Amino acid sequence: MSTDTNADADAESTSKCGASSNGESSEASAESSSSKCGAASADDETSNEQEVGATIDDFDAEPGQLTAVGLGPGHPEGMTERAKTALLEADHIVGYTTYIELIPDEITEAADDIYDTPMCGEVSRTEESIDRALAGNDVAIVGSGDPNVYALAGLALEILESKGATASMVDFDVVPGVPAAQSCAARLGAPLVNDTVSVSLSDHLVPMPEIESRLHAVASETFTITIYNPWSRKRRENFEKACEILLTHRDPDTPVGIVHGAGREDEQVMLTELGDLEDLGEHEIVDMTTTIVVGTEDTYVWDDRMVTPRGYETKYEY
Amino acid sequence: MSTDTNADADAESTSKCGASSNGESSEASAESSSSKCGAASADDETSNEQEVGATIDDFDAEPGQLTAVGLGPGHPEGMTERAKTALLEADHIVGYTTYIELIPDEITEAADDIYDTPMCGEVSRTEESIDRALAGNDVAIVGSGDPNVYALAGLALEILESKGATASMVDFDVVPGVPAAQSCAARLGAPLVNDTVSVSLSDHLVPMPEIESRLHAVASETFTITIYNPWSRKRRENFEKACEILLTHRDPDTPVGIVHGAGREDEQVMLTELGDLEDLGEHEIVDMTTTIVVGTEDTYVWDDRMVTPRGYETKYEY
Repeated sequence: MSTDTNADADAESTSKCGASSNGESSEASAESSSSKCGAASADDETSNEQEVGATIDDFDAEPGQLTAVGLGPGHPEGMTERAKTALLEADHIVGYTTYIELIPDEITEAADDIYDTPMCGEVSRTEESIDRALAGNDVAIVGSGDPNVYALAGLALEILESKGATASMVDFDVVPGVPAAQSCAARLGAPLVNDTVSVSLSDHLVPMPEIESRLHAVASETFTITIYNPWSRKRRENFEKACEILLTHRDPDTPVGIVHGAGREDEQVMLTELGDLEDLGEHEIVDMTTTIVVGTEDTYVWDDRMVTPRGYETKYEY
Repeated sequence: MSTDTNADADAESTSKCGASSNGESSEASAESSSSKCGAASADDETSNEQEVGATIDDFDAEPGQLTAVGLGPGHPEGMTERAKTALLEADHIVGYTTYIELIPDEITEAADDIYDTPMCGEVSRTEESIDRALAGNDVAIVGSGDPNVYALAGLALEILESKGATASMVDFDVVPGVPAAQSCAARLGAPLVNDTVSVSLSDHLVPMPEIESRLHAVASETFTITIYNPWSRKRRENFEKACEILLTHRDPDTPVGIVHGAGREDEQVMLTELGDLEDLGEHEIVDMTTTIVVGTEDTYVWDDRMVTPRGYETKYEY
């Protein structure tokens, strides 16, 4: 497998930055689960290189299980019981360092090995998780939110196929988690109770004209719109363009909710209006960890809560 | 408050059917949490009637807290730790009987009171939860999935406002849960990893022409489409119309995933094609507890999994 080191990856660089691994022995795993980020040993680098591009023919072992686990919002209380069980049953846990740090210590300490990469390639990390499963380990690959929402469940299946393996071979399973849209909506009140759409403004994997076309289509209908990956230094124009498109279909006073780092220590929540959104692109509250909810013409703000009525008022008196 | 008893409610009748309550004492709560559905006592009826239409002026007590709690998919392991904590901290738990039954016994047994209504009005049940909070109780109102996804978070805020109360007065909070779209996607593989849309085919609260317009808008763009409330005897035509609209924009061989009762004992999963979907409306797998995921032109089925590629294959070799 080769990676394009110039690619502008979603929230992560794809360049070959340091990968940490706390070794094969369970004794070593406890203290190093999140302390060695960026400090890969020569052994780790070597073993990575040997494994890159491995196919099913390179593994003799009976394959282990591969499970994509959604951790939900950025605090351990946001995990489901099923996610905890899946992590406890895994021999190896693989993920971006920031997500690994969300996992309670009693779970990471119980694993034989934790493989975490700081700000590093999601493709190589996903391949690593697959190679470990094909080598006979039960592996959990983790991410925040849900594995189906701009996340790794699909990539895992694509890489499995490219290796000549199958999903059945590693008993591939997905443990869902609470997506960012719902974590953020909960902080805002009830903005998403009708038909909704999720759009990512990252043009790393989808061409911007396609994203623009999708935004036009949904902004002209009464969907609440959840925007993922709204802003990065390299994608300033995407955010400006999105605001412009939304304003061609919706009033400047349309309520907009902004949630930065939902459920994390640095969480920030702001209610604003569509006409003021573009200027907030330069504000620290809007970055790649931010989720933005754009209301419909029916959405209103009441008592600091953003509400999209479900339509009950058309049928009931209360 | 009055309810329209002829209305065709989402998955529930709004007629005044029996409400069960297991009394004010915690001693009574253990054995009756789900056993008295439909068997309301005369006292319950009377107290309900007295409370209907109550405004903030009718309550002298210091208000308690009101929390809308999402239970996630239909098994206790799908709940988050935060949802469990919120339910354990509540004096009263209010919900549709089927959802109350999803809650582990140790939680319902710890509550002072459980108020569940079988196949009954969501408006009156939500008002009941608010009246109990305004009367000084800490109340959790529960639903499956997430409180923001076609659920009660918005209705609770609307009814609070109509009573002259505020959200702050009851410290209104929302505990998110895993929505049905993500629970179902997890069973199907990775169909939702790109931009997605959720559309409900229930025209109880939204006029069908508006639903049709939304479907046209999103089906002509590369969104995966999750369909909630796809079919009921009274809404056969909505399902047929939706299939027809989808087929005007997407090929008959577009992959479609159907999940009935996700996470519940009667769960059924089927992979099919868009051209065959309409006929499945008459099959038992498609009803109001079913969620349908319609793929894009990029979606494919591999090894019994439905995959919408995220686009990595355009940037990386693997």
